[in-house]
Amino acid sequence: MLVIMKLDSPRPDIEKVKQKISGKNCIPHEIPGASKLGIGITGQTNLLDEEDFLTMDCVDEVIRVTKPYKLVSREMKQEDTIINVNGSFVGGSELSIIAGPCSVESRQQLFDIAGELKEMGIKFFRAGAYKPRSSPYSFQGLKEKGLEYLADIKKELGLLIVTEAKDTKSLPFVAEVADVIQIGARNMQNFSLLEEVGQLKNAILLKRGLAATIEDLLMSAEYILSQGNFNVILCERGIRTFETMTRNTLDLNAVPIIKKQSHLPIIVDPSHGIGIWDKVPAMALGAIACGADGLMIEVHNQPDKALSDGFQSLTPKNFKLLLEKLEQLAPIVNRKITDYERIG
Amino acid sequence: MLVIMKLDSPRPDIEKVKQKISGKNCIPHEIPGASKLGIGITGQTNLLDEEDFLTMDCVDEVIRVTKPYKLVSREMKQEDTIINVNGSFVGGSELSIIAGPCSVESRQQLFDIAGELKEMGIKFFRAGAYKPRSSPYSFQGLKEKGLEYLADIKKELGLLIVTEAKDTKSLPFVAEVADVIQIGARNMQNFSLLEEVGQLKNAILLKRGLAATIEDLLMSAEYILSQGNFNVILCERGIRTFETMTRNTLDLNAVPIIKKQSHLPIIVDPSHGIGIWDKVPAMALGAIACGADGLMIEVHNQPDKALSDGFQSLTPKNFKLLLEKLEQLAPIVNRKITDYERIG
Amino acid sequence: MLVIMKLDSPRPDIEKVKQKISGKNCIPHEIPGASKLGIGITGQTNLLDEEDFLTMDCVDEVIRVTKPYKLVSREMKQEDTIINVNGSFVGGSELSIIAGPCSVESRQQLFDIAGELKEMGIKFFRAGAYKPRSSPYSFQGLKEKGLEYLADIKKELGLLIVTEAKDTKSLPFVAEVADVIQIGARNMQNFSLLEEVGQLKNAILLKRGLAATIEDLLMSAEYILSQGNFNVILCERGIRTFETMTRNTLDLNAVPIIKKQSHLPIIVDPSHGIGIWDKVPAMALGAIACGADGLMIEVHNQPDKALSDGFQSLTPKNFKLLLEKLEQLAPIVNRKITDYERIG
Amino acid sequence: MLVIMKLDSPRPDIEKVKQKISGKNCIPHEIPGASKLGIGITGQTNLLDEEDFLTMDCVDEVIRVTKPYKLVSREMKQEDTIINVNGSFVGGSELSIIAGPCSVESRQQLFDIAGELKEMGIKFFRAGAYKPRSSPYSFQGLKEKGLEYLADIKKELGLLIVTEAKDTKSLPFVAEVADVIQIGARNMQNFSLLEEVGQLKNAILLKRGLAATIEDLLMSAEYILSQGNFNVILCERGIRTFETMTRNTLDLNAVPIIKKQSHLPIIVDPSHGIGIWDKVPAMALGAIACGADGLMIEVHNQPDKALSDGFQSLTPKNFKLLLEKLEQLAPIVNRKITDYERIG
Repeated sequence: MLVIMKLDSPRPDIEKVKQKISGKNCIPHEIPGASKLGIGITGQTNLLDEEDFLTMDCVDEVIRVTKPYKLVSREMKQEDTIINVNGSFVGGSELSIIAGPCSVESRQQLFDIAGELKEMGIKFFRAGAYKPRSSPYSFQGLKEKGLEYLADIKKELGLLIVTEAKDTKSLPFVAEVADVIQIGARNMQNFSLLEEVGQLKNAILLKRGLAATIEDLLMSAEYILSQGNFNVILCERGIRTFETMTRNTLDLNAVPIIKKQSHLPIIVDPSHGIGIWDKVPAMALGAIACGADGLMIEVHNQPDKALSDGFQSLTPKNFKLLLEKLEQLAPIVNRKITDYERIG
Repeated sequence: MLVIMKLDSPRPDIEKVKQKISGKNCIPHEIPGASKLGIGITGQTNLLDEEDFLTMDCVDEVIRVTKPYKLVSREMKQEDTIINVNGSFVGGSELSIIAGPCSVESRQQLFDIAGELKEMGIKFFRAGAYKPRSSPYSFQGLKEKGLEYLADIKKELGLLIVTEAKDTKSLPFVAEVADVIQIGARNMQNFSLLEEVGQLKNAILLKRGLAATIEDLLMSAEYILSQGNFNVILCERGIRTFETMTRNTLDLNAVPIIKKQSHLPIIVDPSHGIGIWDKVPAMALGAIACGADGLMIEVHNQPDKALSDGFQSLTPKNFKLLLEKLEQLAPIVNRKITDYERIG
Repeated sequence: MLVIMKLDSPRPDIEKVKQKISGKNCIPHEIPGASKLGIGITGQTNLLDEEDFLTMDCVDEVIRVTKPYKLVSREMKQEDTIINVNGSFVGGSELSIIAGPCSVESRQQLFDIAGELKEMGIKFFRAGAYKPRSSPYSFQGLKEKGLEYLADIKKELGLLIVTEAKDTKSLPFVAEVADVIQIGARNMQNFSLLEEVGQLKNAILLKRGLAATIEDLLMSAEYILSQGNFNVILCERGIRTFETMTRNTLDLNAVPIIKKQSHLPIIVDPSHGIGIWDKVPAMALGAIACGADGLMIEVHNQPDKALSDGFQSLTPKNFKLLLEKLEQLAPIVNRKITDYERIG
Repeated sequence: MLVIMKLDSPRPDIEKVKQKISGKNCIPHEIPGASKLGIGITGQTNLLDEEDFLTMDCVDEVIRVTKPYKLVSREMKQEDTIINVNGSFVGGSELSIIAGPCSVESRQQLFDIAGELKEMGIKFFRAGAYKPRSSPYSFQGLKEKGLEYLADIKKELGLLIVTEAKDTKSLPFVAEVADVIQIGARNMQNFSLLEEVGQLKNAILLKRGLAATIEDLLMSAEYILSQGNFNVILCERGIRTFETMTRNTLDLNAVPIIKKQSHLPIIVDPSHGIGIWDKVPAMALGAIACGADGLMIEVHNQPDKALSDGFQSLTPKNFKLLLEKLEQLAPIVNRKITDYERIG
């Protein structure tokens, strides 16, 4: 349920409504709208009476949210959410391009790639310090050492860091370095982890699970928002189907569907999605044309020597060609690639 | 196996090679390349000896085709196939936009919609006279009467007709009217129907089946080419997955994959793919950005009264908005929408 | 809609009801029940008024059928359908075991295998004369010659023949020889073929398509019943999923679901389902334990030399071991393997 | 790689081999075979030379393991693993039947159901204290209170407790009460949790993820074994497909496949698998006929009032009918239901 406050309601009125909600054993969530403030209500809202709120002078409107996901739904908030990641924005008119290698492999590798990306105007740098792998015998990441290198990148190059938190144990260390904490596809329904990142202030990049419906993804985002962290970026990265020529089936249909159902930004990871480097640019362009707010692309300076996922990584040179195409495409979907335009 | 003839080989040399192939109980297929002629060989090519051909003076090169699909593969023919549909081209620099209602419902309905589309510069008009439906109690199309109306559209408005052949029985009637004969998703592995359209000259639009891998689709195309009809247009229209918020999962990954594997043109049908009209434009733009050669879009002047698939049909007005976007997008992927540019 | 006649209604009463139905532009179908006769109604039943029938003296009850499939549904007919295939029964207390090679390869091969199977008490012999294959270059069956051999088997060994009709063109020839006409998975939604077999008297074995929901399968059966042929045996044979260790995912869940939704018999084909011969017996036992009415099993005397699907075929010796297990299992699910018990 | 020691190798010889392995930066794992001891090797075994071991007097044989999963594979250990769960065995001739409600709801509910099950001879009692739920607003379990009640059941009724560990945080509490710790489907690739349970002695019930291939499941089991805990029971519980008439598609094909690939026991959960209570018995029988080592069945005394998954729960009465059927079925697959036979 959503209570819309009258225009410019003073703080005491807002608190009065929130107290009434709490008094009914429900939880109030302030949701700033374009003009009026909304107060979302979660909990046993079926026990609430709309009249109780409509009779309050400061209340303009009461809306029932019909979907199983509440705080993430468009019903609860009509305007697109724009997330401020330490001064850069995700979800607005600027496309968010996150690039970097799959894993942190060495300090040198990291600085080489990050340096090239920074020159291209990229702001969000990705690399995994903790790598969840299907096999216990595969490279599991440099862990704390990897985080240290990422902190150096942040300090020395001024890039925003996107890196994965694999579990609740490493989360505090990751949260210290990461501007955006990534929750991987296999952890999308690791509800304990979701609840913990819900109590942080960092932006969270939540990847869709391999067999997760769009509703499942939105429900997992709801776990995070319901704990107070509204800075959630959704990420489509491919689902499992019978097709074997691609690594996964990147489901671009999810983009317009999510745009309709939710106010949260949605980006696309074509590298994991299709999983074959020379088809990544096509899918990246497709994602933006479908309306995505950004991309997450694997870039490696020596793909054939990468410790993980080399086959799906672009070289910096090919990535630059893609950026040029994206710059052309952006205005057609009413977007821009700000810094890239400035620098390129 | 593919035999590449020397530049400007005279007809007798070509015939000599073809006879040698036939003499080994294999089948020769002339495949015109950009400069040199190729002669594709199908049948038990494992019994052939490359030396037999390499020792012929007129032969330049012999190439083993490693894929299970032969005539459709890029190994057999490197250049993109451009199909001449009675003067309009599919697969070249011009995007092919096929539009129209799901079914022929009445003469009036057909002319109303076709008239609007013609004004927008559309050349390919689609409408089903024979409708394969999951339920025997659903509207099955106007059949012969529907074909008659389509013939009138062709004669009076000069539009090219794209319409489905449901079975071998109605195929001769369809073939008389249709410039492009559509083979529906449920018939993609109706091999008898494929063999029969393989003996026609009409262009064939082959839709991917709901559970067909990309390899399955290419093998079905191979059935048609192996009978002599090289005018095949492939069509991605969505596969079945666990997702329920969309009608199907439109698999845009198929576009760059097919472009790499095959020389045949590939178009996309976002209307059946995502199945929700207000998300069709997003997926249409995505398809072209991914590299598709064209689109097939359902357009109806009264979607809420349509006898089939109204929920996924655009109104002419919304379709026009999409065309304007496509016109902007086309040059970014090195395409154009010729007539639309000229007229709009 | 279903009209239940009063007990022992005389023929003129029945005709009166049928005429009333026809008079409303709907189609009546006589459905014999355990005691009372039902008259199923298809067509635009939403235009019918139940009162029109309830006021007739000879009518006992009127039932609305809520499912999209009508004649195949349990609502329309509560008793299990038992199909009489020239003296042998499918769907009753006796398990129906259909066995034989994938394809007719030669007269000798056919008689060798059929002879061994007959000795084991098998009544239903399967082998394909027309083989739908993904590749146009694969063995397509012996066609008319194959049918001839099957006719010989029938005449000389007295086995009932189960063989596939690939298209409407070959259907008349197949129908002459086959006691049970098989419609393959890829033809499950070849509606023209379904309509034609609906006009025959032969029993029809309808295999589930690779991406067909259970509802789709029942709708396809409905096509056949709606044309007058109620002798339909459904067959689960595996669906397409992401799993790659099996050929298909044999969906045994379909068995209890179909038993609840429909009165038609359902058998299972574990050979195509799991696709690996040494796992076929496990899945065969599982199918019967789940409640299936029978099995279709590929048996070949030289699996490694089979022209198709050898990898999933049992040798006669292994098949006999399976039969012994099935004989033990049958009584637990209130079934028997009659002739096998008598002979074995 | 697997080193097979000579018969009755003395401890010093075993240690010598293990030291050689450790000396090469690989990890040795003792794997007791029927007669001879095996020493499995994981790590960078490609750097090892087989000759190094074959030249040792105490070594009988060296086997390369070709699968990506090592310790769980049949190549590494040919005999079926039989797990001793505090005196009861999983994986041997006795079928393991785990029964109980989805969630612990109250002390009373728990004792009522457990009492009835104990009377039927059931040894393994399941109930969730921590419940991972798609929605943050759904009942999440009684948590610590729930564990307390389960400990009471264990003490007072002597039943073995099977209950889920949702995260590493609650794991120590769960491990204190649980005889078998369940890892749920959504946590199958929560590798940090897998590593932690790998360091415990409790038996682990590892459920297959919704989109996990059989290989994925075996790789996840490998995580646990590689940490030293060989007491792993696999559990098939349904995968996600396009079918909507069932909650999931219970994939019984996994049973014979896993039996071939791995020495670990595999049980089946038909309650979550098909998700509809009146079809659970059919799938349970099917699972055992396919070769499963046991079942996990939801039983609730008031299914319509259950706080979770009531729709898929059997009443004790219906569960007893199933047990009677299972008792008949067991000998056909060379199994028994020991205590049930003794008591029932």
